[in-house]
Amino acid sequence: MVAYDGTDFSGFQVQPDQVTIQGEIEAALHRLTGETIQISGSGRTDAGVHARGQVFHFDTKSGIPLDKWRFVLNNQLPDSIVIRSVEEVSSEFHARFDVKVKEYRYCIDNGAVPDVFRHRYADHIRSPLDVEAMRQAARHLVGRHDFTSFCSAKTVVEDKVRTVYDVRVESEGQVIWVICRGNGFLYNMVRIIVGTLVEVGQGKRHPDELRTILLGRNRELAGKTAPAKGLTMWEVSYEE
Amino acid sequence: MVAYDGTDFSGFQVQPDQVTIQGEIEAALHRLTGETIQISGSGRTDAGVHARGQVFHFDTKSGIPLDKWRFVLNNQLPDSIVIRSVEEVSSEFHARFDVKVKEYRYCIDNGAVPDVFRHRYADHIRSPLDVEAMRQAARHLVGRHDFTSFCSAKTVVEDKVRTVYDVRVESEGQVIWVICRGNGFLYNMVRIIVGTLVEVGQGKRHPDELRTILLGRNRELAGKTAPAKGLTMWEVSYEE
Repeated sequence: MVAYDGTDFSGFQVQPDQVTIQGEIEAALHRLTGETIQISGSGRTDAGVHARGQVFHFDTKSGIPLDKWRFVLNNQLPDSIVIRSVEEVSSEFHARFDVKVKEYRYCIDNGAVPDVFRHRYADHIRSPLDVEAMRQAARHLVGRHDFTSFCSAKTVVEDKVRTVYDVRVESEGQVIWVICRGNGFLYNMVRIIVGTLVEVGQGKRHPDELRTILLGRNRELAGKTAPAKGLTMWEVSYEE
Repeated sequence: MVAYDGTDFSGFQVQPDQVTIQGEIEAALHRLTGETIQISGSGRTDAGVHARGQVFHFDTKSGIPLDKWRFVLNNQLPDSIVIRSVEEVSSEFHARFDVKVKEYRYCIDNGAVPDVFRHRYADHIRSPLDVEAMRQAARHLVGRHDFTSFCSAKTVVEDKVRTVYDVRVESEGQVIWVICRGNGFLYNMVRIIVGTLVEVGQGKRHPDELRTILLGRNRELAGKTAPAKGLTMWEVSYEE
């Protein structure tokens, strides 16, 4: 399991001439083992998106003992990428295909003055948001739905039906967290959900509009895509 | 009052060819007023040191209304510098000379695995520290003392007597805060205090050694200077 501050990376996935999380981890693995190792993450994260509990797997012939892996890998990685735990898994395990539940959290700094120590991890919205209205709106998203309206129009995936278990909106001091749990999320889905809930919180939309947006299956009906920096891949679970 | 994430700056004070907090604020003031304005901070902070409540003053003939200053200044500043409040003061006020109490806080991430979201704001020390021993040691520092042993050997200030009102060591989850309040601090003083308390927390020194170190008036008796990134200028007060 790996946590990272995504601010200075061009996302998770390896890309030519870009500094990525996957690229940094694979380079560290190469230095440690001499092997060319390709890791498989539980999902990609975009440029600027963070993770607290990203999971990846890889195969190796290295003799490094299991209980040393975390320490030696962290020694090879920048401070902005931290291996939190390492486990041995069966050869059948796949970090992406076996995921049962994913949790993303989006952090909105709703203070009149932003908290400078969250400037990399939260989107600042100055005007006070109506959290109760956001909660009402969020209820419409829970369940099994076609989320076409809440994914990037560029998405090529055919099946846009996903099950959202929970969308919570929690206030904590000047910060508002939007917490989404589901069996999977489409491209930009959490950020578009958050962008739409913010417009509800600003009074620009009625909470019940979320139902109409869902049924319309059209990206243009939903709100703006919230900025990447507020988003963190919080947790993935391999049990229902 | 200004807060900043000092990670990407060469400290507070203007220096040729360096990006500094003072330089950024003065450039913003110039763009807003057309005037060449020099600000005076309550104190300097070194490269990598942060602030939550740094205070500075300046003179201007600008007609910008008082209640607009915060907003227009923040619009001109990077996200890593945030003006928290603006007040009008008498022409006798001086941000540095009038300070009565300064508070610095040092953040140690004492988790077996560092919290990646504190990687810019805390110094990670893997081995568990004995907080109770650090508290015992800290008590010796409270009061009016010659702090020669706790300031950089390069310090040119003649009078190294300062009054420390309080040194608290507080645990909060995997984080340990060292909170120092005093009427003023010498160059690197808080970081040397923290570096020495850490050595006590690691069992390398006895808590009562702090008394001997103080009396010895010799920088070599104290511990290492703790890294800049864990230090935050927390608050300055103009009342006793």
